[in-house]
Amino acid sequence: MVGDAVKLSDLPLRADLVGKHPYGAPQLEVPVQLNTNENPFPPSDALVDDLVKSVAVAAAELNRYPDRDAVSLREELARYLTRSTGVDLRAANLWAANGSNEILQQVLQAFGGPGRTALGFEPSYSMHPIISTGTQTQWVSCPRREDFTIDVEQAAAVITEVAPDVLFITSPNNPTGGSIPVDDLRTLIAAAPGMVVVDEAYAEFSDQTSAITLLHEFPRSLVVSRTMSKAFAFAGGRLGYLAAAPAVVDALLLVRLPYHLSTLTQAAALAALRHADDTLASVRRLIGERERVRAALEHKGFRVVDSDANFLLYGPFEDPATAWRRYLDAGVLVRDMGIPGYLRVTIGTEAENDAFLEASS
Amino acid sequence: MVGDAVKLSDLPLRADLVGKHPYGAPQLEVPVQLNTNENPFPPSDALVDDLVKSVAVAAAELNRYPDRDAVSLREELARYLTRSTGVDLRAANLWAANGSNEILQQVLQAFGGPGRTALGFEPSYSMHPIISTGTQTQWVSCPRREDFTIDVEQAAAVITEVAPDVLFITSPNNPTGGSIPVDDLRTLIAAAPGMVVVDEAYAEFSDQTSAITLLHEFPRSLVVSRTMSKAFAFAGGRLGYLAAAPAVVDALLLVRLPYHLSTLTQAAALAALRHADDTLASVRRLIGERERVRAALEHKGFRVVDSDANFLLYGPFEDPATAWRRYLDAGVLVRDMGIPGYLRVTIGTEAENDAFLEASS
Repeated sequence: MVGDAVKLSDLPLRADLVGKHPYGAPQLEVPVQLNTNENPFPPSDALVDDLVKSVAVAAAELNRYPDRDAVSLREELARYLTRSTGVDLRAANLWAANGSNEILQQVLQAFGGPGRTALGFEPSYSMHPIISTGTQTQWVSCPRREDFTIDVEQAAAVITEVAPDVLFITSPNNPTGGSIPVDDLRTLIAAAPGMVVVDEAYAEFSDQTSAITLLHEFPRSLVVSRTMSKAFAFAGGRLGYLAAAPAVVDALLLVRLPYHLSTLTQAAALAALRHADDTLASVRRLIGERERVRAALEHKGFRVVDSDANFLLYGPFEDPATAWRRYLDAGVLVRDMGIPGYLRVTIGTEAENDAFLEASS
Repeated sequence: MVGDAVKLSDLPLRADLVGKHPYGAPQLEVPVQLNTNENPFPPSDALVDDLVKSVAVAAAELNRYPDRDAVSLREELARYLTRSTGVDLRAANLWAANGSNEILQQVLQAFGGPGRTALGFEPSYSMHPIISTGTQTQWVSCPRREDFTIDVEQAAAVITEVAPDVLFITSPNNPTGGSIPVDDLRTLIAAAPGMVVVDEAYAEFSDQTSAITLLHEFPRSLVVSRTMSKAFAFAGGRLGYLAAAPAVVDALLLVRLPYHLSTLTQAAALAALRHADDTLASVRRLIGERERVRAALEHKGFRVVDSDANFLLYGPFEDPATAWRRYLDAGVLVRDMGIPGYLRVTIGTEAENDAFLEASS
């Protein structure tokens, strides 16, 4: 093969990347996949039909570049958020990208970077530090309590002291599952001198009030990021988005790659949004299953962290890596997040959860 | 609207972005659109059918994340390049992303960044300096000759002197149109101490030998980037790719956002590759039109820069902005690249080119 004698160490890689490994859970073919917090329910036939028809129309013009600013899609995302939060949002408040990872990268490109700092409360979504350092933003980690909640008073003091350019708050938090009540969110955002990203990837699974209701209070600093990967069962479609003041969106236009969002992505996401009510019905079902799995795990003697997302962090395991492998041998893929004593399991279908519970003994 | 009192200047934007404007040609509704080097021929019905069928299959599993490493797509891209260049490439030599802009951004994230330098010969593709500075890589511009060719001997001396971490060579060059003969490419690449990106976005329109044939000679430094936006008539699908040594691809895995390429993008690009022979037939037709338009412009007294791409840079115009507006008033959208005395026109269909020529007087 051409160039196969060249080793990575032969290349002039940036110093901070040397010795690093690519991010990502193992992509293994396993009967019961409960490792990446996907929604286990495939799109309805009606959604697939609608999506395919939309793509057929879009495909006939694939020789042309997409709408660079994805205006129709942003209008519909605004309508969805207004419907679910009561906050009057318009397309100008919304921005969309290829997954919330790209959203977060754009926010850091605009408001982070060399000489700037990002702060998060860990353990949390592991892409926050990775994308921060990937954009040369210095990452500062503030530990959570032993039960993975945030000591709000202490956190506000840390925010004041560190004065991060970008603050990350994940609610519900991944991989631990708990949300932050809106009054506590207000305290943390008020303490932040820079931009604040509230990452609400799992918001639809939670009954807490969304940070979107705080946009009126903090229009200069607050960015609320969302994704269609989880509740919308659209992980393969790659659509992340955010709500913020229009000026924040204007800032992102300066760093987004032109035509970043394909015609097909825009058409498919619009189709998915047309079927939102139908798709989001799975959320209630998954919440029911979450409570069932949680009770069953506790009944088996496990400690389960409070969660209002579509996954549970549970333990204790003396050696999570060995336990992870035992699950895999039983045909069940869970996630070892590197948190001592714990594994994370995604809530699947009833049958998948039964298989998981059977393997949990 | 929420937050509409906030101005961009109220936000803690990175200093180097202050006062900048979003990149991009005006997206206007005009009868004859000859401004973004799109392929004027829409996908064939056979391609659209195949694509729609592939998307229907993929859509049924949209609740699952895509193949993070896009292996099938990279295999087919490798086959296509092997077929068209004779160089034996495998999936491990290929990488794909949402447009070649994302490819270039990933290359700069891995091999550029703060304290590092990128060099290009301008005028050239304006995203090279934008993505360089966007990744905090210092951009160094080396001017082309007055006829927009590169003085290879002098260029090699500049490369030796500047010693860029990333060298950009665009062939055919956008927006001027000319290619660099492979022997000259060899001289430039040999002079470069760091990575070299040969941007071949328009390669299919040129009869010059591809830089891919030099990968054997320069496996430690050479990266050849391509796009499906132009010859493949897939601008709306957003698929850029590169060929390089497998270790270069390993380096990009360290900076790519996980799951950057959606299931739909992968399925649609695979469908487009299955119809490559059919689609690429339009390339010959466009080359024929390019030569016809060129001769007609010269007959009208214009000076036309040598081009083996799907566009022509032509002049002289005392005031290109006024001339651009005159074309627009006649229903023809061309591109003012900010090059004194010149405009750029994309080669369209026969009828579009006739309309353009009629407006050129």
